[in-house]
Amino acid sequence: MTPANELTATEAAARIRAGELTSEQLVRACLARIEAREPEVQAWQYLDAEHALAQARAADAVQRDGKGTGALHGVPVGIKDIIDTADMPTENGSPMFRGRRTNHDAACVAALRDAGAIILGKTVTTELANTFPGKTRNPHNLAHTPGGSSSGSAAGVADCHMPLALGTQTGGSVIRPASFCGIYALKPTLGLISRTGVLLQSHTLDTVGVYARSVEDLGLITDCLSARDPADAVSYPRSRGSLLATLREEPPAAPRFAFLQTPAWSHAPEAAQRAIRELVAGLGERCREEALPPPFDRIIELHRAVMGAEDLHYYGRFLADTPQLLSANLRDRLEGVRDVTAQQYIAALNAREVINADLDALLGRYDAILCLSSAGPAPAGLESTGAPIFNGLWTYLGVPCVTLPRLTVDGLPMGVQLVGMRGDEGRLLRTARWLDRELSR
Amino acid sequence: MTPANELTATEAAARIRAGELTSEQLVRACLARIEAREPEVQAWQYLDAEHALAQARAADAVQRDGKGTGALHGVPVGIKDIIDTADMPTENGSPMFRGRRTNHDAACVAALRDAGAIILGKTVTTELANTFPGKTRNPHNLAHTPGGSSSGSAAGVADCHMPLALGTQTGGSVIRPASFCGIYALKPTLGLISRTGVLLQSHTLDTVGVYARSVEDLGLITDCLSARDPADAVSYPRSRGSLLATLREEPPAAPRFAFLQTPAWSHAPEAAQRAIRELVAGLGERCREEALPPPFDRIIELHRAVMGAEDLHYYGRFLADTPQLLSANLRDRLEGVRDVTAQQYIAALNAREVINADLDALLGRYDAILCLSSAGPAPAGLESTGAPIFNGLWTYLGVPCVTLPRLTVDGLPMGVQLVGMRGDEGRLLRTARWLDRELSR
Repeated sequence: MTPANELTATEAAARIRAGELTSEQLVRACLARIEAREPEVQAWQYLDAEHALAQARAADAVQRDGKGTGALHGVPVGIKDIIDTADMPTENGSPMFRGRRTNHDAACVAALRDAGAIILGKTVTTELANTFPGKTRNPHNLAHTPGGSSSGSAAGVADCHMPLALGTQTGGSVIRPASFCGIYALKPTLGLISRTGVLLQSHTLDTVGVYARSVEDLGLITDCLSARDPADAVSYPRSRGSLLATLREEPPAAPRFAFLQTPAWSHAPEAAQRAIRELVAGLGERCREEALPPPFDRIIELHRAVMGAEDLHYYGRFLADTPQLLSANLRDRLEGVRDVTAQQYIAALNAREVINADLDALLGRYDAILCLSSAGPAPAGLESTGAPIFNGLWTYLGVPCVTLPRLTVDGLPMGVQLVGMRGDEGRLLRTARWLDRELSR
Repeated sequence: MTPANELTATEAAARIRAGELTSEQLVRACLARIEAREPEVQAWQYLDAEHALAQARAADAVQRDGKGTGALHGVPVGIKDIIDTADMPTENGSPMFRGRRTNHDAACVAALRDAGAIILGKTVTTELANTFPGKTRNPHNLAHTPGGSSSGSAAGVADCHMPLALGTQTGGSVIRPASFCGIYALKPTLGLISRTGVLLQSHTLDTVGVYARSVEDLGLITDCLSARDPADAVSYPRSRGSLLATLREEPPAAPRFAFLQTPAWSHAPEAAQRAIRELVAGLGERCREEALPPPFDRIIELHRAVMGAEDLHYYGRFLADTPQLLSANLRDRLEGVRDVTAQQYIAALNAREVINADLDALLGRYDAILCLSSAGPAPAGLESTGAPIFNGLWTYLGVPCVTLPRLTVDGLPMGVQLVGMRGDEGRLLRTARWLDRELSR
C-alpha cells in the first residue's frame, strides 16, 4: 500500500472523505518524511509540527461530526514564504523580513483554508522571489539546484513532503522548479488566482501557481483558488466552472499540438533539444512545428524590460534604505534597470497584445503550444537556480502554462510545457492529462 | 414657442416620440442655425446637410411605421472629429489625417445610432486632441477661445447647433470647454464609455464625455453610451441601471458638498476664486471646505508624467515620420517628455490608488466634491485653449466629473464642477441636478 505521504491530493482527499484515512495520519506521514529528508533537501523555511497536527485533528473532528467538508479537507499544502499566513511568519526569503508576522492570510491561503486544507508550513523561496538562491536542494540530486524562486514548494512536493504547494512566477519561478524537480505545475492565467497578501514584485507579471504530483491535482487545487478578487487589479470576472470536471473529460478529438522552439531555443543544450524533438516526433501527425511572427522574436527582452522596471519600482526602497541586506546579485540587477525609459516600458507592455493576438490565432488551430519547460535539467551547483528563459515569455503574455515531468536528460527529470489560451485552464489541463497518459504508455 | 434647435434632447426626443415634431424638422432647425452662425463660430470640421437630412427622414419613416424607437430617436448629435464614423471623414485635427476615412463607426457612435440618434457631423478638435487650437470660437465672445480639445462640440451645443455632442478628455478637454462655453458636460468614470474607434492618446487617461444643455440630457445620452466593451482594456463590467431614472429621483437628504481648492487653486484669478467662494457660502451648512493629504499635493505633476509618457508613446511615430506636419507646440511637448523614466511613470500610475483611497473616504462623508471647472472664464485670444489645470487631476484619478454653467465671471460663463466616486454617475448626476435647481432659484 502507498504510504499516505505519497498519495496524490485527489486520492488523499477521497480517502479522508470516505473515512479510510484521517488527516492526522496523513499529516503524520508527511511530517515523518520531512523529518527524514529535511536535513538534506531543506525545503522548509517554517514548519511547526504541532500546529500542523492541531489543524489536522480539528479537520478530523469536523469530519467525525459529519459537518460539510471542502474539496481539500484534511490535505496538507506547503506555502511559499512570500505568501502571508496569519499563523506563521512570512520572511520573503530576505533578512529584511526576518521574523515578520502579519495578522492576515493572503487571499489564496484563506481560500485553501475554506476548502479544508491544512496549511503545513512555509517553503523556502529565493531572496524576494528574485534569483538569489535559498538553501533548498534538488531531491533528485542534492548537488543540483531545485530551481527557483519557489524552490521549497517544488522540492517538497517532489520529495513527498506534501501532495500540494503554492508558488509564484514573475519570470520562471513556478514552471522551472517543477521541471527541475520532476513534478507537475500550473502557472494559470494572470489574474485567475488573487495576489492579495503576496509579496509584490511586478503587478504586470506576478502570478500564483500550484505544484502537485498529477494533472488532476492541479485542477483540484486550482478550483479552490480561482475566485474573483476586486482588490487585485488583474483579477477578472469569470464563471467558475470546475477545472477538475473539465480535465477529466475525454477531449472531443485527439488534441493537436503546435511545437514552438521559441526565441529561447539556443539556450537549451543539445540533449534537451533532442529529448523534446523525440517527444514531438513520437506525437506524429498530432504535433507540428510552428513559429510566431515578430515581435515574438523580441519577447525575452520585452519581458525583461517590464520585470526590471517593476522590480525596481517595488524593491527600489530596499535598495535605498538597507542595501546591505540585499544580495549583491539583486543590487546589481536593480541598479542595471534604472535607465529604462517610460517609452521602453510602455512599448514593452503594449507589445503583449500584439503577440497575444498571434498566439490566439495559432491556438485557434491547435489545442496547446508545446515547448520546453526549462533550458535543460537542473544544473549542478546551488549558487544559481538556473535560467528562466523558457518561462518569462509566457509570464509576460499572461497565458496559462502546465509542465509535465515527461522527459529525462542526463539522468535528471525535465518538463515538457504546454501553453494555452488566456482564461482557458480547463482545456489546457484536459489536453495536458491526455498527453500525460499518452506519454506514460 | 422654443425653436426646435433650442430644445433639450429630452424635450426633443419626447416631442418626436409623441408625433409633435419630426426629426427632419429638428435637423432643419439645427442646420438653419448652423448656416447662420457657422461663419462666426466655426464649430464644424465636416457637415453634409443632405446626409443629415437623409438620416432624419429615415428616422421619421421608422417612427411613422410604428417601429420601436431608441431613447435618442431622431435627435442630432455632434461628434468630435477624433471619433471614427463610417459615413464621414475623421481627420483628428491634423493635416496628417486630411481626408482620412474609415469603414467603421467607433463603438460610441454605433451606440448612438442604435439609440436612433442622427449623426449630424464632425466637430472641430484641437490638433490630435492635444493643445494646439482649431478654428472654433467661443459663441459668447468670438474673440475668446471656446476651450479645447473638444472645441466644436462645446461651442456647437452652446450655440444651439444641436442639443448633444461627444467629446473626449485626456487632460481637461471635456469639462473646460463646457465651462468656457456655458453648458453642461459629463466626463464619466474611466471605462464607462468604450474608446474603441477613438484616436488613442493615452490609454490610462482618454475618456469619452458628453455635452448637453441640461443635467437630464447628460443622463439621457450617457445611458445610451454606457456599455461594456471587451475590446477596451479599461472597460469594466457593470449592471446598466438608468442614469436618467436615478438623476430624476429626489436625493434622500439634501446633498452635502466638500469644497476643494485643489492644488490648482493659485492658477485661478481672484474673480474666479471669489465667484466660487460666494457659491460655496450660499450653500451654507451643506458645503464645507476640505483638503486631501499628500500625495494629492503632487497630483498635477503626476497627471503630467502619465500623459506625457503616453502621448509620446502614441504620437512618437508622428514625430519621427512627419515632424513637419505637427505643430511646433506639440513637437516641443513630445520632445520634452523623452527623458521620463519608467520609475517616474510607474510611480505616477501607482499613486492613483493612494489618492483614490483618500477620495473615497472623503466621498463617504459627502455626496460630491465641489470645485472650479476651469481656472477662470474663457481667456481672450484664439492662440490657446486655456489651462486644463482644474481637470487633469480628476482625469488622472478616473473619477466622474460634471460641470454646471452656474457662475459668471467678467461677463463670461464659467462652470462649477462636481466630482463623484468612480462608477457612481447616477448619484453624481442626481446631486448635480439638485444643485443646478438650487442655484437657479
